[in-house]
Amino acid sequence: MLNRGITGIAYETVQDGEGRLPLLAPMSEVAGRMSVQVAMRFLETDYGGRGVLLSGVPGVPPADVVILGCGIVGFNAAKIAVGLGAHVTMLDINHNRLKYIDDVLHGNVITVYSNPVTVQRAVSYADVVIGAVLLAGARAPVLVTEKMVSQMKPGSVIIDVSVDQGGSVETTRPTTHAEPVYKLHNVIHYGVPNIPAAVPRTSTYALTNAVLPYIRTMASKGLRKAAEEDSALALGINLAQGVLTNEAVAAAFGMGWKSWQDMA
Amino acid sequence: MLNRGITGIAYETVQDGEGRLPLLAPMSEVAGRMSVQVAMRFLETDYGGRGVLLSGVPGVPPADVVILGCGIVGFNAAKIAVGLGAHVTMLDINHNRLKYIDDVLHGNVITVYSNPVTVQRAVSYADVVIGAVLLAGARAPVLVTEKMVSQMKPGSVIIDVSVDQGGSVETTRPTTHAEPVYKLHNVIHYGVPNIPAAVPRTSTYALTNAVLPYIRTMASKGLRKAAEEDSALALGINLAQGVLTNEAVAAAFGMGWKSWQDMA
Amino acid sequence: MLNRGITGIAYETVQDGEGRLPLLAPMSEVAGRMSVQVAMRFLETDYGGRGVLLSGVPGVPPADVVILGCGIVGFNAAKIAVGLGAHVTMLDINHNRLKYIDDVLHGNVITVYSNPVTVQRAVSYADVVIGAVLLAGARAPVLVTEKMVSQMKPGSVIIDVSVDQGGSVETTRPTTHAEPVYKLHNVIHYGVPNIPAAVPRTSTYALTNAVLPYIRTMASKGLRKAAEEDSALALGINLAQGVLTNEAVAAAFGMGWKSWQDMA
Amino acid sequence: MLNRGITGIAYETVQDGEGRLPLLAPMSEVAGRMSVQVAMRFLETDYGGRGVLLSGVPGVPPADVVILGCGIVGFNAAKIAVGLGAHVTMLDINHNRLKYIDDVLHGNVITVYSNPVTVQRAVSYADVVIGAVLLAGARAPVLVTEKMVSQMKPGSVIIDVSVDQGGSVETTRPTTHAEPVYKLHNVIHYGVPNIPAAVPRTSTYALTNAVLPYIRTMASKGLRKAAEEDSALALGINLAQGVLTNEAVAAAFGMGWKSWQDMA
Amino acid sequence: MLNRGITGIAYETVQDGEGRLPLLAPMSEVAGRMSVQVAMRFLETDYGGRGVLLSGVPGVPPADVVILGCGIVGFNAAKIAVGLGAHVTMLDINHNRLKYIDDVLHGNVITVYSNPVTVQRAVSYADVVIGAVLLAGARAPVLVTEKMVSQMKPGSVIIDVSVDQGGSVETTRPTTHAEPVYKLHNVIHYGVPNIPAAVPRTSTYALTNAVLPYIRTMASKGLRKAAEEDSALALGINLAQGVLTNEAVAAAFGMGWKSWQDMA
Amino acid sequence: MLNRGITGIAYETVQDGEGRLPLLAPMSEVAGRMSVQVAMRFLETDYGGRGVLLSGVPGVPPADVVILGCGIVGFNAAKIAVGLGAHVTMLDINHNRLKYIDDVLHGNVITVYSNPVTVQRAVSYADVVIGAVLLAGARAPVLVTEKMVSQMKPGSVIIDVSVDQGGSVETTRPTTHAEPVYKLHNVIHYGVPNIPAAVPRTSTYALTNAVLPYIRTMASKGLRKAAEEDSALALGINLAQGVLTNEAVAAAFGMGWKSWQDMA
Repeated sequence: MLNRGITGIAYETVQDGEGRLPLLAPMSEVAGRMSVQVAMRFLETDYGGRGVLLSGVPGVPPADVVILGCGIVGFNAAKIAVGLGAHVTMLDINHNRLKYIDDVLHGNVITVYSNPVTVQRAVSYADVVIGAVLLAGARAPVLVTEKMVSQMKPGSVIIDVSVDQGGSVETTRPTTHAEPVYKLHNVIHYGVPNIPAAVPRTSTYALTNAVLPYIRTMASKGLRKAAEEDSALALGINLAQGVLTNEAVAAAFGMGWKSWQDMA
Repeated sequence: MLNRGITGIAYETVQDGEGRLPLLAPMSEVAGRMSVQVAMRFLETDYGGRGVLLSGVPGVPPADVVILGCGIVGFNAAKIAVGLGAHVTMLDINHNRLKYIDDVLHGNVITVYSNPVTVQRAVSYADVVIGAVLLAGARAPVLVTEKMVSQMKPGSVIIDVSVDQGGSVETTRPTTHAEPVYKLHNVIHYGVPNIPAAVPRTSTYALTNAVLPYIRTMASKGLRKAAEEDSALALGINLAQGVLTNEAVAAAFGMGWKSWQDMA
Repeated sequence: MLNRGITGIAYETVQDGEGRLPLLAPMSEVAGRMSVQVAMRFLETDYGGRGVLLSGVPGVPPADVVILGCGIVGFNAAKIAVGLGAHVTMLDINHNRLKYIDDVLHGNVITVYSNPVTVQRAVSYADVVIGAVLLAGARAPVLVTEKMVSQMKPGSVIIDVSVDQGGSVETTRPTTHAEPVYKLHNVIHYGVPNIPAAVPRTSTYALTNAVLPYIRTMASKGLRKAAEEDSALALGINLAQGVLTNEAVAAAFGMGWKSWQDMA
Repeated sequence: MLNRGITGIAYETVQDGEGRLPLLAPMSEVAGRMSVQVAMRFLETDYGGRGVLLSGVPGVPPADVVILGCGIVGFNAAKIAVGLGAHVTMLDINHNRLKYIDDVLHGNVITVYSNPVTVQRAVSYADVVIGAVLLAGARAPVLVTEKMVSQMKPGSVIIDVSVDQGGSVETTRPTTHAEPVYKLHNVIHYGVPNIPAAVPRTSTYALTNAVLPYIRTMASKGLRKAAEEDSALALGINLAQGVLTNEAVAAAFGMGWKSWQDMA
Repeated sequence: MLNRGITGIAYETVQDGEGRLPLLAPMSEVAGRMSVQVAMRFLETDYGGRGVLLSGVPGVPPADVVILGCGIVGFNAAKIAVGLGAHVTMLDINHNRLKYIDDVLHGNVITVYSNPVTVQRAVSYADVVIGAVLLAGARAPVLVTEKMVSQMKPGSVIIDVSVDQGGSVETTRPTTHAEPVYKLHNVIHYGVPNIPAAVPRTSTYALTNAVLPYIRTMASKGLRKAAEEDSALALGINLAQGVLTNEAVAAAFGMGWKSWQDMA
Repeated sequence: MLNRGITGIAYETVQDGEGRLPLLAPMSEVAGRMSVQVAMRFLETDYGGRGVLLSGVPGVPPADVVILGCGIVGFNAAKIAVGLGAHVTMLDINHNRLKYIDDVLHGNVITVYSNPVTVQRAVSYADVVIGAVLLAGARAPVLVTEKMVSQMKPGSVIIDVSVDQGGSVETTRPTTHAEPVYKLHNVIHYGVPNIPAAVPRTSTYALTNAVLPYIRTMASKGLRKAAEEDSALALGINLAQGVLTNEAVAAAFGMGWKSWQDMA
């Protein structure tokens, strides 16, 4: 890419002042909502699960869904799980986030401050565990150990949405849409990194919605002016005119770099 | 009363065609709602309880409220407990009732078909157990055994609203507003039979609302005509002109009786 | 069975005074809720669908779910679809039922009086059609014609829950859990008659909840007394002591029959 | 005003650090809520409309309300329309705003990323279009073209709340409370700029609530000190002691100006 | 009509076993919902009202809506008023109905047992009074006296939906869509008997939905057979083959009559 | 403490960039929720109150709860009161806060801009007044005068959560868990400063959740580094190595001080 003199903007480094990644957010929304949909499927007997209906019926309790992380992925998973009538527990260490969820979901979820004890307890009664702890630019912390997994109910399901950042469950590893799951300790593990690919129509619209405003601005003002006015966009420029412009990438590859502002 | 020739109508024998007791229903509504209010209080440390806030706060789970019986008492208890954000489990054997509750409370309660196994399981994790199983004209069935009580969490609370019909918890006995609770197996037992007396203003209005239409009808038509037209009212007449008119009462006291219809 | 002198009670002929089938109701609840879960799956691209996420995400509309019939199946499907944030249209000809749904789901679904014009219009914009029109003891009416199916969006999904009663969609035929779907006019057809089998744990509990009270009564009172006191149960007795006791079955097989009441 | 040496503060230039206009916000809330109320009226036949009840009734679908813009006006319009049971579609290009609305209105509205294609599609099925796109200090963008209007359903209604900033619908022009509407392409156009005037009691309280804190501060501290401490207020000062202090106004009239800070 | 030998079925005498009027119910739904819409309008200053926005805005309270009667009209009015965020009080003497409304509207309305004292108190603080007390086949009872009206707030609004049955407000009299209101004691009175005519599209669909099943049955089976099988329909037949068949109508006109069952 | 060379961090001076006190917030949540629970109790006759059930029952209106202040305490009180079905009025002068509450509680509370007139009016009809106006580092403003208290309904209840900052009700003074209330003007006054102590289990978890992250950071990085990186923590350091480091405290005691940054 450098040889061809391409100017490249990476979705995952466009970042606004509050650390949000506006071009990845829509995919996180889709992934969070899909994670519950996937979990429902693998709870069915034909798919190897416990044979449990997530929503229950009158007289038969619903499934227990435990969501690790209250970010975009976790919150969207919760919206769906709550809507289905599941019994939902969410864990996080960000009190402001727990508070907002409590405001908006009106006591329909149980929010728990996350620590090893509360994670262990929640996982032990879960029918579904959704790993949704993502740290920007870092490996996801491993919250669920193999020992915890080994004590889960047989036929329960783990969906680890953070698998492409190392996973927040010790026993998850990346899988594919073709072979999405494997069993370990009699627990179904789902580790497809690109969940939104299952619903491309929705995902494409969602992604395009996010990207379009940047493209419009670049088209009308040119990249330089657009980036000067929008620091989020500026952070996205990884290479320009054949030169690396992202310090971290340069460091990773042992190459030199130059700030794009310093280029002609 | 017989000597004085009183004509007496008993609230608890006025009964409509579907077996409902229209003059007791409002008190059941008050008792059901009050039962949660009382439980909250006795969960406080100063009152001997576990020191738990029923609603929890963001990051700390709410209390577990288990309600035995989905009749008027149980449903009103559930409305309040759900409104407070508690984690509510309701048990009953009437599927139509479980269905209605599922419709109206939108998955905010977990409905469970009641049997000894499900009762035992629910009681074992409860912070609050509300006994609300009332059978018209019969002793309440004992659903919670002393053994189950002995396995409850220390400082948890039992409110047995059915205590005046024998109680649906083996270890409950009637108490008074002055000495409302006692501890057994480290569980707080509340067995005040007349809970609504704590909120007389609300209770009086509620009761008067129910009674007034009958009084109006009797005042305008006379008792005989009113009772002829309204079989619920007719069932309420226990004595008339110095004669017993309720067969069951007569049998209980070994006295003679006469149908009020047969009197002049 | 007759030779062996078996006394047989059929789930599907136990029927209460209002025409309800209390032993089938729980399965209808499971089937209704499962139908939406199944539909979500087949909307995924890997399963042949349009690639649409049922709930949408902010900025991308949800899927359109059209439910034909507001009975137990349809209402339970609606609860789930509404909970997921889908755009739900329900059709029926029973105004009281439409009114109840409007009360309980608070304007979250659009209720439409069903006739060929409204069905055609709704199906034309649907991503998912759920056939839930079941007539007790009769073939389901065909509401969706092949022509309507041929005008549906490519990759949309039909779940015909009434398929074992002939189906309410002209183009559906029974399928199996092993081969659950086929495509016709580029529309995915799902016609598995026994949907609840996918979640046997939930289904078994639900069914047992419904059956248990009858078994208890029969065990304590004997079948004869139990049936005399409960007309729903009485209707369920299809053969007794080696004699057919159900007139309709007898007629279908050209055999004689006898009322169970007339037997010793 | 300059001659009289008046010190003038303009409501519309008091602006806080995040670009919000605190003295105009309450009027936007009233206007947004009123816009739906006005639309309901003009859907009635006597007022020239389609004869449609916004909320529908069980069996008859509600009206389709399309809201362009998710700012204060649009969100308040949506709250009302959702409360009435209308089928509501909101369009905007601000993803964070769409997300918040999705959180708070729980899937009761359909949020769509706005672009010419989605606007065209939404307008084509609308019974009511509410134009609520307001850009601070700029002409509202024209989102709905005359061609789109010409394809709307006969008797549908456009309420253009942004009409006093040029309007977001090509065919709207300002009207008056006396003659509030006109028809074009058989579509009712409502372009009253000062909608809140219809409910002066509510509007006056709302406005006073917003203004009072500023007046109190000025009364206790004097204008200079108050403005020094509150940059929003400072921006509101347009003229002081007979001198223009707002650069933009000065430019518009070709007059000189002076910063109020520089005055004695 | 008799001379022409017409067979006539009157909408208002088709009545089911529980006393419901299935052909009038849809119109009551429309009228109930419209009543709030009309009230909103007349609260506007231009229409003579108090200048109050029914829903209020943050910081300014909503209007007080008092609904007399919890039947179809009243309940539909309440749904709309609650949806708008008004402060709603409903009065009735039917406890079961109050209970159902409390279940379904989740504490969003205040239910009050109706008697002269509670009516007087509620009316005294109302911005809007909706008279929705309808007794089948009898004059509506006058619940609101002229004295109560004279003590209402200036510019408040009375919508008397029961006006065509005599009205439940002493001071209301029928008005027309052309001249819908008059002022008395500075209170706006709206007494249009046929409110649904304002939204004919919705009303016609609603009415047709209700009528169509009867027409279909009559078309396929003939009137006689249809009426024999459906007692509600039978009650609707007021004249047949030139003979009066409704006893009450015959009595009112001093004419003879014959049961339709007795005719050839 | 200075003599012993202790380094002390005060919960109440840890303060983030937006003026929030993260270590006190959880206690405010508990206090707000408890305040309603306490109010319910003192409305009971045995506790001296009006004998009113906060939630009412069908046919009997709920209690009126007036909450002064929409901060953490007030909002949490409102959540509980709304959940119970009380009629809730909230007053504040922060429009953004009123707006958020209107968004999240969906019109279930009445928000009113606070000024002496609106406070007086609200207090006059209240069954419960909750004082929840807390100014960071300043005496709470007295909003409710003794005269207003003297005009409250007999047996009504005041819970003044701000009592330890001087109280927002003129007649409240601190009380204890042992003697929590006193009567004045026949109004019950509750002024326990440390409400959360009644539910120590919940409170301890809530507090620990908030404190733990700071302790972890200090343990892994040392206090100096932790404080350098987190300005909220830095503000919490009141004394270090035997030297006062908080200017305000030093001033209050007439002692010298030194910035902790200036220490070795």
